[in-house]
Amino acid sequence: MNLEAYILGTGGTMPLPGRFLTSVLLRREGDLLLFDCGEGTQVALRRLGLRWKKISAIFISHTHADHVTGLPGILMLSSQVDRDTPLYIYGPPKIREYVEVNRKALDMYINYEIIVREIPKPSLPDVVYSTEGYQVRAFPVPHSRTCYGYSVVEDPRPGLFHPEKARELGIPVGPLWGKLQAGEQIQLEDGRSFSASDVMGPARKGRKFTFITDSLPDPGLVNEMRDADLLICEGMYQHAEADTAAEKRHMTGVQAAALARDAGGVRQMGMVHFSPRYTKRDIQVIEDEARAVFPAAFAGKDGMLVEIPYVD
Amino acid sequence: MNLEAYILGTGGTMPLPGRFLTSVLLRREGDLLLFDCGEGTQVALRRLGLRWKKISAIFISHTHADHVTGLPGILMLSSQVDRDTPLYIYGPPKIREYVEVNRKALDMYINYEIIVREIPKPSLPDVVYSTEGYQVRAFPVPHSRTCYGYSVVEDPRPGLFHPEKARELGIPVGPLWGKLQAGEQIQLEDGRSFSASDVMGPARKGRKFTFITDSLPDPGLVNEMRDADLLICEGMYQHAEADTAAEKRHMTGVQAAALARDAGGVRQMGMVHFSPRYTKRDIQVIEDEARAVFPAAFAGKDGMLVEIPYVD
Repeated sequence: MNLEAYILGTGGTMPLPGRFLTSVLLRREGDLLLFDCGEGTQVALRRLGLRWKKISAIFISHTHADHVTGLPGILMLSSQVDRDTPLYIYGPPKIREYVEVNRKALDMYINYEIIVREIPKPSLPDVVYSTEGYQVRAFPVPHSRTCYGYSVVEDPRPGLFHPEKARELGIPVGPLWGKLQAGEQIQLEDGRSFSASDVMGPARKGRKFTFITDSLPDPGLVNEMRDADLLICEGMYQHAEADTAAEKRHMTGVQAAALARDAGGVRQMGMVHFSPRYTKRDIQVIEDEARAVFPAAFAGKDGMLVEIPYVD
Repeated sequence: MNLEAYILGTGGTMPLPGRFLTSVLLRREGDLLLFDCGEGTQVALRRLGLRWKKISAIFISHTHADHVTGLPGILMLSSQVDRDTPLYIYGPPKIREYVEVNRKALDMYINYEIIVREIPKPSLPDVVYSTEGYQVRAFPVPHSRTCYGYSVVEDPRPGLFHPEKARELGIPVGPLWGKLQAGEQIQLEDGRSFSASDVMGPARKGRKFTFITDSLPDPGLVNEMRDADLLICEGMYQHAEADTAAEKRHMTGVQAAALARDAGGVRQMGMVHFSPRYTKRDIQVIEDEARAVFPAAFAGKDGMLVEIPYVD
């Protein structure tokens, strides 16, 4: 099953010519999950040429304009396809107000159900969305406004099948092997019965995608980053601007990299939400600085597709 | 005094990669007036590289999303410069609600005064904004929601100075000529007195810029279009789609051109708000069709600068 992240934009604060605001679309087979939705995200999505109108759920980090003002456009365009399932929007307090007042003030044409779920901060960290095959967990991150990170965590996969064990136990090659791999119990003609655990290794962890922006480099974040197959994390500033980052309750690329390193098990980290003051060259500096700390770090680029493969 | 229009975008309904939503920035010396402000307009403005953060007033045609959802971004960015004058926003009913609920829901940082003036439809047509050198007139246009067009009309300029008349009257070349041109009365040493009208022709009309979108091709529009030095008018559809245009309460390029022709005195007409279904080639068809009816018609292009010179 494919799991892939499209980095729709990498900008912070304001959209720029050639740099969309930070947003990530995660695709897992037919499911599309959108993380943050600033002004212009619908254009960034359209640029990909995906059938993106059937987004299942949108997860909003916080209600600063650069993370939400693209919502009305996305919601209206989602009316251009038939859908029989609701669109879920998750976010911190005020996200429902934001959606509802805009629907009302703009008298938007929406031909499907929108369900906005405001997540109360004291309830976190917790699973906020759960569907076949994966869950989405939300956790608070320290910023100048109530702000959440999110992790998509796949259910564990069955362990590896060991044919040599099946042969050893005298289970004949054929449909019975398939049943065991699917988790069923089987009985042989000689009366002996076997279950999956007799021929398969331990369950393997599913993949994990983690999205964190905007946040101070709080050491507690390592618990949420741990074992992420793809971590998307803000790396808004060069390390020389660590003071500015702290003052604005953001972090530098180096700080993001140190957290990813300390977390353990992070396979790759894409940085986003770059200061609008920075040129491409400035962002290259952020990447270089971060890689010196955590070699699996990279600077996200608008339109970048990042595959998230199984480890084993 | 320069008067120039920047066509920031030419799209209708939704922003596209490579096509911003319809919006026009009118510059008259230090004054910047913005007409409509859909998602992405701040990016289109930034692309021009102007000092655009000090917009004096924003005029909104109507509260469909593709004409207003860029406002929060523009309002926030306008906080990045010092300004001691308010920013005015003019539009139909609900525009104040739209601005206020977004300010509140997003808890926007705004360090200057925003004055929203909702224009009641029964009061129109009328002058809604008046400042040194020009006025802005609003008028209702027929669409699926209360919608206004706007005309910027410069004050009349003084007539031409006729030096031969001044000589004939025995007024000596020098400061007295300047005083007469500035509209002052003068007295010669021999006791005779003269005023401007003795040496100058009749006052000349100022320039006129008219902005109309979204609208049915109502014949009454000709009264507002008349004598426009630059008319920006929607030409959303090819003429083969006149039925679609009517159903959606829009017009074709041909219909816009016929109105501009019938109005009389329209010097150039730039068409905007093209259907998102249309490619550049399709829009070329709109231009070709419109020019056959009114040769001074052209299809607007994103980022286009249109100078509006004095006629004489």
